[in-house]
Amino acid sequence: MTAQAIAVLDLVAVFVFAVSGAILAGRRGLDVFGMFVAAFVTGVGGGTVRDVLLDRPVFWLGDGRYLAAALAATALVFVAGARVERINRPLAWADAAGLAVATPLGVAAARVEGVDWPIMIAMGVVTATFGGMIRDVLCREPPMILHREVYATAALGGAAVNVVVAAATGDPWAAVAACAATVFAIRAGAIVFGWKAPGWRGGA
Amino acid sequence: MTAQAIAVLDLVAVFVFAVSGAILAGRRGLDVFGMFVAAFVTGVGGGTVRDVLLDRPVFWLGDGRYLAAALAATALVFVAGARVERINRPLAWADAAGLAVATPLGVAAARVEGVDWPIMIAMGVVTATFGGMIRDVLCREPPMILHREVYATAALGGAAVNVVVAAATGDPWAAVAACAATVFAIRAGAIVFGWKAPGWRGGA
Amino acid sequence: MTAQAIAVLDLVAVFVFAVSGAILAGRRGLDVFGMFVAAFVTGVGGGTVRDVLLDRPVFWLGDGRYLAAALAATALVFVAGARVERINRPLAWADAAGLAVATPLGVAAARVEGVDWPIMIAMGVVTATFGGMIRDVLCREPPMILHREVYATAALGGAAVNVVVAAATGDPWAAVAACAATVFAIRAGAIVFGWKAPGWRGGA
Repeated sequence: MTAQAIAVLDLVAVFVFAVSGAILAGRRGLDVFGMFVAAFVTGVGGGTVRDVLLDRPVFWLGDGRYLAAALAATALVFVAGARVERINRPLAWADAAGLAVATPLGVAAARVEGVDWPIMIAMGVVTATFGGMIRDVLCREPPMILHREVYATAALGGAAVNVVVAAATGDPWAAVAACAATVFAIRAGAIVFGWKAPGWRGGA
Repeated sequence: MTAQAIAVLDLVAVFVFAVSGAILAGRRGLDVFGMFVAAFVTGVGGGTVRDVLLDRPVFWLGDGRYLAAALAATALVFVAGARVERINRPLAWADAAGLAVATPLGVAAARVEGVDWPIMIAMGVVTATFGGMIRDVLCREPPMILHREVYATAALGGAAVNVVVAAATGDPWAAVAACAATVFAIRAGAIVFGWKAPGWRGGA
Repeated sequence: MTAQAIAVLDLVAVFVFAVSGAILAGRRGLDVFGMFVAAFVTGVGGGTVRDVLLDRPVFWLGDGRYLAAALAATALVFVAGARVERINRPLAWADAAGLAVATPLGVAAARVEGVDWPIMIAMGVVTATFGGMIRDVLCREPPMILHREVYATAALGGAAVNVVVAAATGDPWAAVAACAATVFAIRAGAIVFGWKAPGWRGGA
C-alpha cells in the first residue's frame, strides 16, 4: 500500500469515528461546538496515539483534510439529528465501521515503519480502539473497549488476519480487505447476538 | 518572540491552570497532596501534549520552575481556601485566564518549529484546552471543553486572530496581545451571558 | 544497572500493575476480554508515558514478553477469582507493589538517558503513577493518585531516596532497594493506618 492509499483510508476512518463522536455528544445534550470537539478527538485519537508510540509525525498535522472530515461528520450528524437516532444503535454501528477501517490502517502504517509483525498487530489495535476510548472517557460513558463484548478482540483478530494474509499472498490490498471484513463481521456478530465472554462470576 | 519570552508565558499559564486544578480538587474534598497532583497535571498537561505532538522536548523537563509554579498555586489555593470559594465562579475565571495565556503560547511554540499556520492554530487550541480536559477527567467533572458554551471555540478564534495579526503587522507581541484579549473576551462573554450554540434538540 | 536488569524490573512492574487492572475490571463485572485490556493498559501505561516524555523508544514495542506478562496476570486473576477478593484490599496491595517496583525503574530509565536528578525523580513518579491513573479513569473509579492518602507522595519520597543513595554510595542496586522499600513502607503505612493530609475543610 502506498502512503497515498493509507492517507485516504485514514480520512475514511477519521470520518466514521467522528460520526460516532458527534452522535454520542449530541445524545448527551452538548451543543454543536461540543459535538465537533468530540468528533475531532474521536476521529484522530487512535491514529495520533499510534504515531506518537511509533515516533513518527502525527498524521493530521499539516493536512487540513482531517479537520474537514471531522467538520463534515459533525454537520451530517447535526443536520440529520433525530433521524440518526431512529437507526438501531447508530453509535455502535458507526463505531464498528471505524474499527473495521482503522485496524488495517494501523497495521499498514506500522508496516511502512518496518517493524515486526507483533508490533503491526498492536498498532492495528491501538489505532482502532483509542479514539473511541477517549470519546467514551470524555463523554463519561462506560468505555466500549472494556464493557462491550468482543471489542478489542475484534480488532486483534482482524489485525492477525491482516498479517497472515499479507504474508501468504503478498497482496497488501487483499490483506486490508480480509482484515476489515474480519473486524466488521466479529463486531456485527457481537452487536446483533450479544456475544459475551465469562467474567468473575462465571470464572471463579 | 524569543524562547525566553515563551518560557515566561509558559510559567504564567502553568500557574493559572494549576490554580484551577487545585480549586477543583479542593472542592472535591481531596487532601493537599491530591490538590498538588491535580494542579501540576492541569498546569503542564496542555503544553506537554503540544510538545509530544510536535515531537519537541517536553517544556517542563529540565526546568524546576514549572514544578515551583504548581507548588505555589497549590499553596495559594490551600491557604486562601474558603475565601477563594466566595469569588463568583473562581474555577471558571482561573480557567479562562489560563486559556487566554496558553493559546498565544501554543501558537508561538508552533511558529518556532516552522510549521504552517493551520498547525499553529491547532497547537494553540491543544495547548489551551488539554490541561483542563485532563483536570476534568481526573476529577470526574463533565469536561469544560465539551459542556461549556464557546470554550474550544474561544481558543480557536484567538489563535486565528494571532496568525492574522502576526502576518499583517509582523509584530509577534501585538499578535499575542490580540490573541489573549480575543480568547478572554469570548470566554468572559460566555461565562457572564451564558452564550450557547444549538444542539440536537434545536437542530433536528 | 544494565538495560537487561531494567527490562526484568519492567516485566515485574507490568505484571503487578496488570494484576491490579484485572482485579478492578473483574470487580466491575467486565468479561475476561475487558479484564485483559484493563490489565495491559494499566501494566504498560506508566512506562509508556515515561518513554514518550523522554522521547525514547516505547519499552514494550518489539518485546512480546510484556504482552505475555499481562496475559499471565489476567489468567491468574480470572482463575483465582473469588479467592482474590477474600484478601484484604487486594487492589490496594497489588497497586502498592507496582508502585514500589515501578518507581526505581522510572528513575533508572531516566538515568540511562543522562538527564538531571529532578527529571529522574519526575520520571520515577510518572512511571509509577500513570498506569494506575489510566486504569482508574477507564474503570470510572475515583483516581487513587488524587483520592488516596500519600500516594504520589510515596513515589516522590522513594525516588528522592533513590537519587540520594545512588549519589552517596555509587551502587545502583542499593539505590533501587532503598527506593522500593521506601515507597512500599509509605504506601503500606497509608493503607493500614489511613494516613491523610488536610484538605480545604481543615486548611481554610
